[in-house]
Amino acid sequence: MADAVVDTVASVPVAVIGAGPAGLMLAHRLGRAGVDTIVIDTRTRHEIETTQRAGILEADAARDLVETGVSDRILREGHEHEGTELRVGGRPYRIHFKALVGESVWLYPQTDVFIDLANARDRDGGTVRFGVKDTEVLDITTNAPRVRYTAPDGSRYEIRARYVVGADGSRSMCRNLVPEDRRARYGKEYPFAWFGILAEAPMSAPELVYAHSEHGFALISQRSEAVQRMYFQCSPDESVDDWSDDRVWETLQARVAGEDGFCLKEGPIAEKTVLRFRSFVQEPMRWGSLVLAGDAAHTVPPTGARGLNLALHDVKVLADVLLRALGGAGEAALDDYQPRALQRVWRAQNFSHWMTQLLHTAPGGSPFDLRRQLGELDNVVGTHAGRAYLAEQYTGWPVSALG
Amino acid sequence: MADAVVDTVASVPVAVIGAGPAGLMLAHRLGRAGVDTIVIDTRTRHEIETTQRAGILEADAARDLVETGVSDRILREGHEHEGTELRVGGRPYRIHFKALVGESVWLYPQTDVFIDLANARDRDGGTVRFGVKDTEVLDITTNAPRVRYTAPDGSRYEIRARYVVGADGSRSMCRNLVPEDRRARYGKEYPFAWFGILAEAPMSAPELVYAHSEHGFALISQRSEAVQRMYFQCSPDESVDDWSDDRVWETLQARVAGEDGFCLKEGPIAEKTVLRFRSFVQEPMRWGSLVLAGDAAHTVPPTGARGLNLALHDVKVLADVLLRALGGAGEAALDDYQPRALQRVWRAQNFSHWMTQLLHTAPGGSPFDLRRQLGELDNVVGTHAGRAYLAEQYTGWPVSALG
Repeated sequence: MADAVVDTVASVPVAVIGAGPAGLMLAHRLGRAGVDTIVIDTRTRHEIETTQRAGILEADAARDLVETGVSDRILREGHEHEGTELRVGGRPYRIHFKALVGESVWLYPQTDVFIDLANARDRDGGTVRFGVKDTEVLDITTNAPRVRYTAPDGSRYEIRARYVVGADGSRSMCRNLVPEDRRARYGKEYPFAWFGILAEAPMSAPELVYAHSEHGFALISQRSEAVQRMYFQCSPDESVDDWSDDRVWETLQARVAGEDGFCLKEGPIAEKTVLRFRSFVQEPMRWGSLVLAGDAAHTVPPTGARGLNLALHDVKVLADVLLRALGGAGEAALDDYQPRALQRVWRAQNFSHWMTQLLHTAPGGSPFDLRRQLGELDNVVGTHAGRAYLAEQYTGWPVSALG
Repeated sequence: MADAVVDTVASVPVAVIGAGPAGLMLAHRLGRAGVDTIVIDTRTRHEIETTQRAGILEADAARDLVETGVSDRILREGHEHEGTELRVGGRPYRIHFKALVGESVWLYPQTDVFIDLANARDRDGGTVRFGVKDTEVLDITTNAPRVRYTAPDGSRYEIRARYVVGADGSRSMCRNLVPEDRRARYGKEYPFAWFGILAEAPMSAPELVYAHSEHGFALISQRSEAVQRMYFQCSPDESVDDWSDDRVWETLQARVAGEDGFCLKEGPIAEKTVLRFRSFVQEPMRWGSLVLAGDAAHTVPPTGARGLNLALHDVKVLADVLLRALGGAGEAALDDYQPRALQRVWRAQNFSHWMTQLLHTAPGGSPFDLRRQLGELDNVVGTHAGRAYLAEQYTGWPVSALG
């Protein structure tokens, strides 16, 4: 394949593999500074636009979308959430982020972040190639790495770049380019999954509701006024075929029911999915002229809503070091990337793990574990220090809090 | 034995099994309100006075010793600690309790709390019988429970009481009186223990130092100007015979060494002990006319310094409900005891478990777990919210924070 005839050769300082939010936001940030990129993705634009993903952006990330000129649509169509609700045994407790740590989060689906970024690339004349095949990344241990791919029309392209960024998601091909004996992979599997639905129904609550109940975990979130996203803890081996709409609603209602009479607004279920999840980090995040960003380098359980935010933080740091590297500081500038990105990655790994163990029912957990968990929840929702501890991690650490 | 001849019969409202801090503080509190007690213990006074135990009192507990008239010796001979140090990979981080949550803790050995309480009983004419044998608690499901025991001189005594309090520590006999089919026991064993030493040396630090290092956990604490108490994580099967003084000091020094040049002041080691620990709770805390308090009902790992404080909180609540019960409210007043005590018990169980997993190296822990733990430590020591979360739990929850 590497020897196949190439129809077109293009040169840019940075080639980006993966047109998700991480890859496109990096291209946007570099483009603003006058650095050209070519972004490629194996998926079509339509595929990415129609894949349901997380929908909570920390305030810093929301501000960045507006202030870097991607779009201000989030301010008009997103929903600012100044807090979230934890339900423990049917009792509601509000975690008031804004009052606790001065920050909020924004409900704005990842697909909308993608749409805004893809439109911004179009508007700004950036190059993004969707639906490519046969991607190859070559010569990453040299100063002249190349990326080859086949366009949807069958023609072969080669990108000659100074740096290649692997932002190709949780099933990253790029991360496998770091030699096996030079990389470390850290991970944890969980003995449960989320059963996720997309329901055509009005909002049941104005903010996200995280429920811990004797029946297991549930999360009530929103997508828009008319479409809701909800999840409940299930076995990783669960099959959606075994779940009628009635059974889904019955399960969800039981997990959120409480003394306040809270009740979900039901509607037709348009989509049912079982989401397995795990914790994962690969180090190093850079190998020669290849740099990894976002899910390609790390995956978190969805419980703390950190994944998208972490990816956007990665590329904020990465844009900074790439501009310095290309601006004359040379490759040495890239040495800053991993330490600056990884501190937040491991904090977020811990937070996501903590939120997960705090709210889920562990299969085979001992009665001691359950009561300790309830003691932990009581301390988290029942004290100012506990609420602030959760709020700061959920809304993202202020940049000043990181070294 | 129950039919043996009794030489002397005494009647008091409350009989207390166990003359540790919980039993004696309860007797003191009841005595101040004019309610007589007889406290018995199988140990001699000398045995209790010479047993090394924990030495951190939360500020509320220290205040209670002074304000209820036990003694003000803690103010003269104790040391107020406004914070503690966490050392992570050799870097020191101060957790400034006073600045974070407005509270401090007091370094004052449990043996001194015992001595003050035993002296106060003497001074106030309270009855405490040490070194008893053959203790039997009878008729606890009636309104007229009895306690029988053999005094050191061989004579047999019977106490007729309205209530019996089991404050007989972590190897409690009383808790076994709750029928097996009516009690639940919750617990967790840990795959490590503490190797504790008592060293004749000057203080190495003005406050406690909790060290997380690649070599494992260590805790540097103080007993007095001339005697220090230090611990390091070891296997539960470790034998003190395998540890020369040199090997102990080498191990401790390696775990606290750091870029600041911190170094322990060494001296002859007067005592070496392997302390196994576990988490344990028995419910209910009351059965008929028998009520459990302190370690008899719950044990925590020592990492969060909660054990003694929790016991003193139990008897504060218990004195209150016993006085109401005896003052005319009747047995129904005792219904308040368990819920009021247990909320703090489970918070403390969680905190002790959390501090333990935060600072120890888990045998067989995965590389992911270790890095997640370092991410958690970074968040705890590196953010205000993290430090406050630790500080509030370490100094004890304000009474207003509990329901």
